[in-house]
Amino acid sequence: MITVTTYRWVPPFAHGHVRDLRVRWALEEAGLPYHTRLIGLEDQSDPAYRAQQPFGQVPVLQDGELILFESGAIVQHIAERSEALMPADRIARARVTAWLYAALNSVEPATQALAEIDFFHAGEDWAKARRPAALEFANKRLAAVAAWLDGRDWLEGRFTAGDLMMCAVLRTPDEAVIAEFPALAAYKARCEARPAFQKALADHLAVFAATPEPA
Amino acid sequence: MITVTTYRWVPPFAHGHVRDLRVRWALEEAGLPYHTRLIGLEDQSDPAYRAQQPFGQVPVLQDGELILFESGAIVQHIAERSEALMPADRIARARVTAWLYAALNSVEPATQALAEIDFFHAGEDWAKARRPAALEFANKRLAAVAAWLDGRDWLEGRFTAGDLMMCAVLRTPDEAVIAEFPALAAYKARCEARPAFQKALADHLAVFAATPEPA
Repeated sequence: MITVTTYRWVPPFAHGHVRDLRVRWALEEAGLPYHTRLIGLEDQSDPAYRAQQPFGQVPVLQDGELILFESGAIVQHIAERSEALMPADRIARARVTAWLYAALNSVEPATQALAEIDFFHAGEDWAKARRPAALEFANKRLAAVAAWLDGRDWLEGRFTAGDLMMCAVLRTPDEAVIAEFPALAAYKARCEARPAFQKALADHLAVFAATPEPA
Repeated sequence: MITVTTYRWVPPFAHGHVRDLRVRWALEEAGLPYHTRLIGLEDQSDPAYRAQQPFGQVPVLQDGELILFESGAIVQHIAERSEALMPADRIARARVTAWLYAALNSVEPATQALAEIDFFHAGEDWAKARRPAALEFANKRLAAVAAWLDGRDWLEGRFTAGDLMMCAVLRTPDEAVIAEFPALAAYKARCEARPAFQKALADHLAVFAATPEPA
C-alpha cells in the first residue's frame, strides 16, 4: 500500500495549500488507495526525516521500495501508474510532463512570489515597491496559460496530471489575481469540481480539523 | 534528427545562462547528435512559436513527431533515451526525477529570486530591504542540498540528469553565494568539468559569438 507523509497540523492559512493535497488528488484520480503518516513541524529537521525528504518538507511518498519526494515527481510517478492521469501514448506522456514542469517552474515561481508579497508582507515598504513588477511578471505567465487554454477545456485534449498541477499552482495566489483571467478562473473551477479533487481536499482538511494546535 | 530551438542573440550577461545549455549538455552526455534552429527575441510573441512554446521562451526540442518545451521535461525526455543520464532501474529512475523537480521547484525559485536582486536591482531600496530574507531562504535550500551531498560525489550514487539540472541551477546565483558552501562549490566544479558540459557550453557560446547585436 502507498503511504503519503504529511503534517498533522499547520496554521489555518495553510489549510488547502499544503502539497500533500496534490498527491492525494492524484491518488484519487488514479483510484489508488493510500495510508497517511502524520509528522509534526518539528520533524522537519530530524536527520532520519531528511534522509527521506532532503528539504525537510512534505509530502513524501512510499510505494513499495521507492521513497520519493517533490510533489512534481510524486504526481508524475502516480500518473505513470494510471491512464486516468497520463495517456499510454509516448508522445502524449511527454507532453504531460511538459505541463508538470511548466506549472512548477514557469508559473509557480512567479505566482508564489506575488502570493508571498500579498499574504505575508503586504504592509511592508519593500513589498509595496516591488508588487507592481511581481504582478506584471505573474500576469505575463498567467496570460500565456490563458492564451493556450483559449478554445480548450484542458491543456492537452483531456484532463491529465498536467492540469492537476496547473490547477494546484493557480490556487496559490490571491483569487483576485486569477479573476483577471476569466479563462483561467473557469479552468480552475473545472478542475476543482472534479470529485477526486473534492475527496482529496476533504481528506486533507480533515487531518487539520482533528488536530489541536500544538502547545 | 533532434532539433533544439534557441536564440541567435542574447545580451552578454545571459551568455552561459540561456536554458538551451541544459539541453545541449544532456544531448552531449547521451551522445545524441542534434541540429539547432535559431530564433530572434522578437519571435517570442509570434503565435506560431507560441504554439510550440506557450511562454515564448527557449528551448524547444523537436524529436520526430514530439515537440517539447520546458527544460526540465526536455532533459527528462533525453534521459529516458540514455542510461548515461538515468539508470534503467525503475526505482532509480523515479529518484532522478525527484532531483530534476527539486532543482527546478525547491532550489531555483529561491536562488533565482536572489540572483534577480543581485544582478538587476542591487541599488534599489526594495532590493536592499528584501535581500537578507531572500538570502536566508536561498541558503536554507542550498544548505539542504549541501547536507545531502555530504560524503557523496553525486546526488544518487552516480552522475544523472538530476546532477545536470542541479548544477545548472547552482550556476544562476552570484558565485559568492555558492562559495559559502564548499561542498556545493566542489560539486558544481565536478559537474562543470565533465567533457559533455564543456562541449555544450562552447557550442552555446559560439552561437552568440557569431551573431552581431541586433540593430
